[in-house]
Amino acid sequence: MIMVNMKDVAKEAGVSLGTVSNYLNQKKLKPETEKRIKKAIKKLHYVRNNAARDLRKNNSSYVVFVLPTVWTPFFSELTFWIQKDLDQIGYKTILCLSENQYEQEKGFVDMAEEQRVAGIISVSYSNITSHVHSGIPLVSIEKEDTGLFSLISSDNYSGGELAASELKKRGASKYFFVGSDNESLKAMTARKSGFVDFCNRNHLEYLLYKISSTSNEPKFNDQLSNVTKKLIDYSKTCDNLGVFAYTDEVAFKLYLKILDQGIKVPDKIQIIGFDGWKLSKDQSLDLSSIRQPIKDIAKNAVRELDSQIKGKSFDKTPRIMLPVSFYSGKTTREVD
Amino acid sequence: MIMVNMKDVAKEAGVSLGTVSNYLNQKKLKPETEKRIKKAIKKLHYVRNNAARDLRKNNSSYVVFVLPTVWTPFFSELTFWIQKDLDQIGYKTILCLSENQYEQEKGFVDMAEEQRVAGIISVSYSNITSHVHSGIPLVSIEKEDTGLFSLISSDNYSGGELAASELKKRGASKYFFVGSDNESLKAMTARKSGFVDFCNRNHLEYLLYKISSTSNEPKFNDQLSNVTKKLIDYSKTCDNLGVFAYTDEVAFKLYLKILDQGIKVPDKIQIIGFDGWKLSKDQSLDLSSIRQPIKDIAKNAVRELDSQIKGKSFDKTPRIMLPVSFYSGKTTREVD
Repeated sequence: MIMVNMKDVAKEAGVSLGTVSNYLNQKKLKPETEKRIKKAIKKLHYVRNNAARDLRKNNSSYVVFVLPTVWTPFFSELTFWIQKDLDQIGYKTILCLSENQYEQEKGFVDMAEEQRVAGIISVSYSNITSHVHSGIPLVSIEKEDTGLFSLISSDNYSGGELAASELKKRGASKYFFVGSDNESLKAMTARKSGFVDFCNRNHLEYLLYKISSTSNEPKFNDQLSNVTKKLIDYSKTCDNLGVFAYTDEVAFKLYLKILDQGIKVPDKIQIIGFDGWKLSKDQSLDLSSIRQPIKDIAKNAVRELDSQIKGKSFDKTPRIMLPVSFYSGKTTREVD
Repeated sequence: MIMVNMKDVAKEAGVSLGTVSNYLNQKKLKPETEKRIKKAIKKLHYVRNNAARDLRKNNSSYVVFVLPTVWTPFFSELTFWIQKDLDQIGYKTILCLSENQYEQEKGFVDMAEEQRVAGIISVSYSNITSHVHSGIPLVSIEKEDTGLFSLISSDNYSGGELAASELKKRGASKYFFVGSDNESLKAMTARKSGFVDFCNRNHLEYLLYKISSTSNEPKFNDQLSNVTKKLIDYSKTCDNLGVFAYTDEVAFKLYLKILDQGIKVPDKIQIIGFDGWKLSKDQSLDLSSIRQPIKDIAKNAVRELDSQIKGKSFDKTPRIMLPVSFYSGKTTREVD
């Protein structure tokens, strides 16, 4: 596409290029000259070239946001707030979806450096930060293992404790954790540890059910069917089972499978997930869950990135951990 | 952030700037010189500046994607595919969420022009296209009223017919449409018309329930409660009601409200929505729905935009309408 440039405006207005430049930089001109330039701009639909200006000033208003997907309630909410918050302080969001593919992530980081963007916000479960050599400002959400970049996360450990404690309040007679035991996912491991520690401290009987950490495998579905079967067996002799699934994705799938077997939730089995999925800004999914403060995570990530970009942060590697809360949905009982 | 530039590389390698430039443009150099430049690049972590190159070549690899939100299953799926498809042919996606605010949309279009991006893809329910003067390539999804830009949409009218026809197959005794009557939303009006026309042609008794088109008002919730009450009244004398809600958002809210009143779905009332919401790539919501071909919409929008950018499209204002399909979930009965 060929767009109208300053030269075209100068020609149309019958003035020099320098005069147009002075006009655009709001220098004082003769009213007659100003009028002619204004008319030419309007007639030609001239739009100033901010890409050129940014480059001249060695400046960028682009931020690269790398995350696995935007197609789950958690990530779509996070993306919503990140874009809103970046926009509010004048940054544009370049959306980069990796589907957890290491090569994709690497490509996005290379692109960010080649485009000289202002900074990167990333949600990566591999070690994306190990690619970043250029000193480009970067803020990680949920996971950052190198210690060289800042990290914003939820308090996953307390979330695990909270899940057990809410099940206890609701009279659960036996406790179950369903989640992966992939030790590299520290956030997930912390959820389990919080749950287990609470159970141990309170002498509550618990069982751990391991599932795969990748949900798009056929194996994953079989594993969940297997867990469902075991839970239903327990529910025959035991009246109020308390299940903590380490993500809402697992909780929701489990919930549907249990319902399909004709077992009542929360009467026979109570389920608490983790994340706090909402279908949209004003529609929750009605799954009981440990809700992550997604809006606050976004706000902190953007604020931290902005202060790094502006050279205002002294500590380049803060660890910011935000509190979670319990959302009471349809999969847990009322508290007596 | 100060990044290493070509001058730094030249200095480190002890060669001229021109030699570094020749190296980067893959011209033939003495092996010894090449080696020194390669070493300097590695040592300094030099990254080529594509922003500068694009500007020099009057080129852009950015596409602005404007839509109301990313925080509903429909828009998050659409955004997922748009980003994937753009990425595959080398474009970067600038995500711009308008929350249906006209001023926001206008601001994003201005930004797109000022940044000299390659093109715009928009989902706008106001008349965003009326701002666009610069001849920048633009593809609209779902709505485009000026006739000056290309439009990709689903076959909404056939979707309305299909909803009525699927309810008829499942023996509905009375038919209900729940949706807004905002005439400016042509896609929505087409859904209603298809439904009504099918009912008339087949001598099926139907009723239309009007609700507000904006779901974040308190009024909207009251209206849905009111519709729920009326449906439940009918269900007392009539055994198999067939409801077509014009979006999955409305269908899902209605479904939860009806369940809350202890009425069985689909035994007493069957519900079909429109959109085909999936929670994630591998998890449907189990709501019966007329599914939009979201992946195809994205593919067509990106292909059309790319051919406009490359000057390959002769018809600048095609109207591409894609077929919808019925997704059989838990809110409709089995077909006898």
